[in-house]
Amino acid sequence: MNPHAFPDQQIAGVYRAIRERRDVRHFKPGPLEDGQLARFIAAAHNGPSVGLMQPWRFIRIASSELRKQIHQHVNEERILTAQALGKRADEFMLLKVEGILSCAEVLVVGMIDKRDDFVFGRRTMPEMDLASAACALQNFWLAARAEGIGAGWVSMFDPKQLRALCGMPDGSQPIAVLCVGQVEQFYTAPMLELERWDTRRPLADILYEDSWDNPGSLST
Amino acid sequence: MNPHAFPDQQIAGVYRAIRERRDVRHFKPGPLEDGQLARFIAAAHNGPSVGLMQPWRFIRIASSELRKQIHQHVNEERILTAQALGKRADEFMLLKVEGILSCAEVLVVGMIDKRDDFVFGRRTMPEMDLASAACALQNFWLAARAEGIGAGWVSMFDPKQLRALCGMPDGSQPIAVLCVGQVEQFYTAPMLELERWDTRRPLADILYEDSWDNPGSLST
Repeated sequence: MNPHAFPDQQIAGVYRAIRERRDVRHFKPGPLEDGQLARFIAAAHNGPSVGLMQPWRFIRIASSELRKQIHQHVNEERILTAQALGKRADEFMLLKVEGILSCAEVLVVGMIDKRDDFVFGRRTMPEMDLASAACALQNFWLAARAEGIGAGWVSMFDPKQLRALCGMPDGSQPIAVLCVGQVEQFYTAPMLELERWDTRRPLADILYEDSWDNPGSLST
Repeated sequence: MNPHAFPDQQIAGVYRAIRERRDVRHFKPGPLEDGQLARFIAAAHNGPSVGLMQPWRFIRIASSELRKQIHQHVNEERILTAQALGKRADEFMLLKVEGILSCAEVLVVGMIDKRDDFVFGRRTMPEMDLASAACALQNFWLAARAEGIGAGWVSMFDPKQLRALCGMPDGSQPIAVLCVGQVEQFYTAPMLELERWDTRRPLADILYEDSWDNPGSLST
């Protein structure tokens, strides 16, 4: 018996949030409950960070004019993405890729400038700042899912242009337009699976042993 | 009443895992339970990924010789990190930064080669592959914590050298040496806080409104 294990219902909650979390693009009207956004951001701030650098910052978009500008920029980038996709362009254009105008809250998430001041765990792996911020966002996502709130991470933007829209300093780096809000229902599987964009790979495909491409085993 | 919200105990489990997860470097002897590693990797594989690219791969290190080589390489990089830190070098060298030799399982986590084939959500933000893989690892970390198992993400390595050690192809990218195992106890706060390397910033410091550095409010 492991004394550090959570009670069964708590463990079930963790696995359920992991399994039922979705990248949400379809929201229904209605605000978040009072305190929810603060809990989700606090959950993110409990994320791990290399050398404890805590690189993440959250810009809550309160101005509806700014929200519209962000939406317009994302839509422009969506068209450029379609063009870059070539033969899958038409298929792509049918997908809903964001819910910026319909969600309750939009957050632009960015990393601080002057990140090169942080060396711990980053000397050869400077991109660990992004890994840390992504883990923080996964916390946000799971906390929201547990409370029945949808979140969608939009990365379809030009960082320079989004930086300008949000008055972000040189050297800072936007990584997400995060859409958060009430949903009619959570997708039963990732939307890109439901829409047959791609399929989930079997677990055996992602596991190796000692060397790349050498099939792995999980028996102990 | 939100019909998509989990029952209270499940929500509590999610927040508890987020709050009590630690980057673990101190392990005690003993294997994982049968099935645990598979559950944690499946949790990771439930992670979000940009355009459903599922960039993550897990190399389970079964060879004790290879584990020693990885440990030796990480230790070399630790010394180079200390040198790069300058005046905090001595302080850094007192910190325990990994538990590679003492943990039950070591996994090298990497991203696939040929990632440029994936354009969706990555045209201007190619680094979203890493963000996806990091979210997957956060799932792993939280699932392990819920089951009372410690995990530590070591990023102190030279990607080229780790790639060579694990037979990874050109274009693939190792992002973590993941140490997993039983623990005597979980740190009461992040080890780097306990060791006074840095402190957790107040929530108000990480929240802006509409523009960088403009103080944010969470009231709705």
